[in-house]
Amino acid sequence: MTDFAATKAMFALPEGMIYLDGNSLGPMPRATAERVRHTIEDEWGEMLITGWNKAGWMQKPTAIGDRIARLIGAEPGHVVMGDTLSIKVYQAVASALELNPTRKVVLSDSGNFPSDLYMVEGLVKSLGPDYALRVVAPEEVSAHITDDVAVLMLTEVDYRTGRKHDMKALTEQAHAAGVVTVWDLAHSAGALPVDLAGCKADFAVGCTYKYLNSGPGGPAFIYVAPRHADAARPALSGWLGHAAPFDFDLNYKPGNGIERMRVGTPPVLQLAALEASMDIWDMADMADVRAKSIELCDLFITEVEARCPDLTLASPRDGAGRGSQVSFRFHEGYAAMQALIARGVVGDFRAPDIMRFGFTPLYIDEGDVRAAVDIIEDVMTNALWDRPEYKTRNAVT
Amino acid sequence: MTDFAATKAMFALPEGMIYLDGNSLGPMPRATAERVRHTIEDEWGEMLITGWNKAGWMQKPTAIGDRIARLIGAEPGHVVMGDTLSIKVYQAVASALELNPTRKVVLSDSGNFPSDLYMVEGLVKSLGPDYALRVVAPEEVSAHITDDVAVLMLTEVDYRTGRKHDMKALTEQAHAAGVVTVWDLAHSAGALPVDLAGCKADFAVGCTYKYLNSGPGGPAFIYVAPRHADAARPALSGWLGHAAPFDFDLNYKPGNGIERMRVGTPPVLQLAALEASMDIWDMADMADVRAKSIELCDLFITEVEARCPDLTLASPRDGAGRGSQVSFRFHEGYAAMQALIARGVVGDFRAPDIMRFGFTPLYIDEGDVRAAVDIIEDVMTNALWDRPEYKTRNAVT
Repeated sequence: MTDFAATKAMFALPEGMIYLDGNSLGPMPRATAERVRHTIEDEWGEMLITGWNKAGWMQKPTAIGDRIARLIGAEPGHVVMGDTLSIKVYQAVASALELNPTRKVVLSDSGNFPSDLYMVEGLVKSLGPDYALRVVAPEEVSAHITDDVAVLMLTEVDYRTGRKHDMKALTEQAHAAGVVTVWDLAHSAGALPVDLAGCKADFAVGCTYKYLNSGPGGPAFIYVAPRHADAARPALSGWLGHAAPFDFDLNYKPGNGIERMRVGTPPVLQLAALEASMDIWDMADMADVRAKSIELCDLFITEVEARCPDLTLASPRDGAGRGSQVSFRFHEGYAAMQALIARGVVGDFRAPDIMRFGFTPLYIDEGDVRAAVDIIEDVMTNALWDRPEYKTRNAVT
Repeated sequence: MTDFAATKAMFALPEGMIYLDGNSLGPMPRATAERVRHTIEDEWGEMLITGWNKAGWMQKPTAIGDRIARLIGAEPGHVVMGDTLSIKVYQAVASALELNPTRKVVLSDSGNFPSDLYMVEGLVKSLGPDYALRVVAPEEVSAHITDDVAVLMLTEVDYRTGRKHDMKALTEQAHAAGVVTVWDLAHSAGALPVDLAGCKADFAVGCTYKYLNSGPGGPAFIYVAPRHADAARPALSGWLGHAAPFDFDLNYKPGNGIERMRVGTPPVLQLAALEASMDIWDMADMADVRAKSIELCDLFITEVEARCPDLTLASPRDGAGRGSQVSFRFHEGYAAMQALIARGVVGDFRAPDIMRFGFTPLYIDEGDVRAAVDIIEDVMTNALWDRPEYKTRNAVT
């Protein structure tokens, strides 16, 4: 049984803040700064260039990939860290398209995170006029899995509402129609159990700065199913994905399996920060995390609906159909969220009217949920959102 | 006049080590660990998600880009940080090809860093059989700038020998033939003065973990000439390159100028490390750095040639034709370099027989050069390289 009191004690959160925005940027583990200092001063400072071997920097992308593999149901040795999620989306979709060469359509949905759509828009434009990105409503995805679709690219959990796709069913349907799948786990990894192997997912990608708490700009990951790993051509064919990078051949020869999805030099400092967070994740069982997350979200929904009638639930009511977040609609959602943040309840806002609250059992408990609802009730009942200082928009919240 | 004693005092180098491998991984500035700690604990830890605005994380890629622009002769506002150098090569060449749509050939040379060739090999394969990468010998580049070439992609300074291309002449010749240029400044930025604007370079890319001392995995940069900046289509079209990322539109609309070359979330911790190093670079004048670098390299060549007759100069003898490194050939170069490293003179080895020594006036002075030559003479005169412990190869040296 995961000891959530112990995991909570391993995070440093500002006094008086209830942080419900770990779905955007996870909070800081207490051990991170010292871990990164060690990498800077004791590794880089002392070992310099030899750190690539002596400190194991070169192997970190796959070593940490294996620790993430456990959380997402991936086979060991089939996840590698690096780059940003947008780059990993491009890599996965480019490879997936080539595995299905007679078809030219990438199917996605309008609930996908826009950057995923942008990256594929850029890719299909490069590939030429035969290729297309087809975007449908999330509830219409199943009906559009037709035999002209090459790749189905979906984010499992909707970043605004937390609505969760059925990965297993959609992947099965896709395979039956000859479609290769790419799953974005940005709001899944560390949020809920994922079973990539069991779902027979083809490709998956995700980021680490949300539920995996690696800090701002933490690296992304990519998974390629074992059956594709030695067949997928990396469109982004960089030297660290080469079979023998230090031979400095003039021609590219892809490395074995997931190694070929490496591109350039790994971000060693960001990886060190991620390791500090993975030490906490190693203490957690995803089934426990999921059970507790649903419990916290259900409590939050029940209490907010009972005490704040102006807020309308935007997330699925059934925990099984939801990620680890709860969203409510309110016409002055931006201002209301600013008023909440001013009182220490930090969620975020997504246009046009969504107030988003993430729940992460690793550092949020029932007491936090109840305290947050008290403040939300105060803000709503006393219309504290109707103050001019909360109505000016910032670029990022 | 740059105060090199002052800049040297700002680096922490291990006692007894003469570090001549800053062309591979620069050493650690004394201020880096504290700067990164501040970003982790005082920004991420205290501000959490609001750090994107409050701590200015979102603007760092262009703010730091402007500081690098000064070192490479770029117009302010036309350099942005992010990703790895390999990704930036892909981005630059993909955009450059589209600016020259009637031609399909990328010309490069066999002295280019292999990853640059690999990335373009991957790109042209994705674009289809009409496209090709043509690789010629460095001295034959000029003769191959023909009117079927779309893009000339070169690394200015050869990573093995330090041989320097004439950027201005080749760019002029390329433009006269209707060719768009992409310059890789991996061994130029911080090594010698670069005048991108004066050379009318079209695109340039570079890394920061070599001469710019940002630490292992530091981010890359990309430059797009002002005349192309609003015309270049980013093939890697990520959300932070969107004109309005936080509108979360479903369709991509490129941002203004260099902003469109941003892709995903910037690596905030690696950028903080880079800032600590840029504080030192802000004290340096590239003309001073170049003069001192040539002086140190010339001294090294003269002394080594006088005292170590078994070593054969592999770098141009004329300082003007060289980067900030000196390479010698020796049939047992790998073992000799291992013997040197064991005695505190850290250079590196590149197959088949190149011993590479980088000289960086920011932290290497004449005393270091003379002390290094004494040790090299000892290793060579007494055949210390002929010991079995130095002959076993590691993956990275």
